[in-house]
Amino acid sequence: MAEPKPYGEAGGSARAFDLGGYLKSRGAIVERALAGVVAESDGAATRLLEAMRYSLLAGGKRLRPILALAACEAVGGALDAALPYACAMEMIHTYSLIHDDLPCMDDDDLRRGRPTNHKVYGEALATLAGDGLLTDAFKVLARGGAQAASPAVLLETIAELAEAAGSAGMVGGQAIDLLGEGRALGLAELEVMHRRKTGALFVAAVCGGARLGGANPAQLAALREYARALGLAFQVIDDVLDVEASTEAIGKRTNKDGARGKSTYPALMGVERARELAHNLIAQATDALREFDNRAEPLRALAAYAVERKL
Amino acid sequence: MAEPKPYGEAGGSARAFDLGGYLKSRGAIVERALAGVVAESDGAATRLLEAMRYSLLAGGKRLRPILALAACEAVGGALDAALPYACAMEMIHTYSLIHDDLPCMDDDDLRRGRPTNHKVYGEALATLAGDGLLTDAFKVLARGGAQAASPAVLLETIAELAEAAGSAGMVGGQAIDLLGEGRALGLAELEVMHRRKTGALFVAAVCGGARLGGANPAQLAALREYARALGLAFQVIDDVLDVEASTEAIGKRTNKDGARGKSTYPALMGVERARELAHNLIAQATDALREFDNRAEPLRALAAYAVERKL
Repeated sequence: MAEPKPYGEAGGSARAFDLGGYLKSRGAIVERALAGVVAESDGAATRLLEAMRYSLLAGGKRLRPILALAACEAVGGALDAALPYACAMEMIHTYSLIHDDLPCMDDDDLRRGRPTNHKVYGEALATLAGDGLLTDAFKVLARGGAQAASPAVLLETIAELAEAAGSAGMVGGQAIDLLGEGRALGLAELEVMHRRKTGALFVAAVCGGARLGGANPAQLAALREYARALGLAFQVIDDVLDVEASTEAIGKRTNKDGARGKSTYPALMGVERARELAHNLIAQATDALREFDNRAEPLRALAAYAVERKL
Repeated sequence: MAEPKPYGEAGGSARAFDLGGYLKSRGAIVERALAGVVAESDGAATRLLEAMRYSLLAGGKRLRPILALAACEAVGGALDAALPYACAMEMIHTYSLIHDDLPCMDDDDLRRGRPTNHKVYGEALATLAGDGLLTDAFKVLARGGAQAASPAVLLETIAELAEAAGSAGMVGGQAIDLLGEGRALGLAELEVMHRRKTGALFVAAVCGGARLGGANPAQLAALREYARALGLAFQVIDDVLDVEASTEAIGKRTNKDGARGKSTYPALMGVERARELAHNLIAQATDALREFDNRAEPLRALAAYAVERKL
């Protein structure tokens, strides 16, 4: 495999590493595994399982599970070692989307181009489908990972995931977001919110995958730095893309987040400086991988993709 | 300690074992531990933590955590070995109550004599408080239990708890309950619903506590039988008490469950036969403990309490 061009160099987007092919092959592995984690029927609560499968198998980028697999590979681990963990990540991400879309939360009707879970199954069953995916994620991880990793390693991975997804992480970030709506957050508050709401799960994806792949402490520390920077960069670019899409579509800056009174990076620092911040974060993420060999190419390419993407 | 009188014998309720004192002392241990599992503030999502603590520390019988401790003691384990697990059980039970009370579910305004979580904190934060308690439960268990048990034992406990609380257990049972409202369930369907909705967590409480206390496979099998029978007996008696309370209060049988079109044991078999069923189940539960010595007294007394209680 050719040495990658350093990040930001001319022609950096036409890198030797085929990210598209990687995303496709790892995405297919994730899809196959996800199709098996929730039963199709059980004779009594089949409608619940159907609701869980509706959202879990609705496509999406599968970014978190692919990050877990890529981190596992970056430290020389076998894909199978991280696959149950990758599934658990996506189950938790999916539950958070189902609950986020509920009328009492963001009240969204569409998700990934299809009616949201509660639009199809009703609010009560959608709430339960989210609860089921969250709970079952820990079962999949605790049972499925037991063959691949030592119990002690798996246990630490479970604790980290629960911490990242719970009140100290994602759920806490959602609460901050909820309570902050309608009032202006400063940059520091915005960063805290994002680090918890989306960043914590990015870090868990990368560190958990690496841990299950056999990472040593130095590798884990480097990958944590990588994931922290990548997660925030993703969020900054999300904000930028949201503004630009709105600008292109209707010729002025009335974007979805702005309309809801949500604080965003472009609103706080302007689009240009927000893009610059994202690029700096990605440089930081890539630099954190400097001691890794070419098995970390997928992670490097994913970092580049984070700021180059158009959606 | 005196040999307990066999179940059902005359004077059986005035047993030598002091259940009241046991519930008080173990309850106090659980309360102290629960007060420490959710932080009081974290500088950003403090309102979420407040909502979580509001419901978690609202009292209640603490039956599931006490069952976990009693099962641990029954096999000679130290209380500390099962205490994080006991906390996790109550966190999961509490989250299920918060979500159950939501307007889109049972739409209840009062719980344990206080306004329900969403009445105080709003639906969005109540949803997140439930999500936070559920997720944090696995953190508490994975981190807190690591000192007491071997990683392999703890891992099996986590898997069993997740299975009991998830789509194959409690959440599945809630979905069956939800989808069955308004139509008549047969006895077999009613049992399936209860075994999943409340029974699975009873079994997890007892078996998890025992496992962490060092139970051998034969003990685990016996305790599983005990917990299965106890869990169902509790539910049957709940139905009976619900009918009797309504009958006493307003002189005719328009009870809460009946009014909602929910199937109940008294409705399907009459109050007398329902009481008989509960007594048979408790005899079964007590018989399952026949090989245990007097360290199982708390479990035997809890079984007797299950049918003798008035609320």
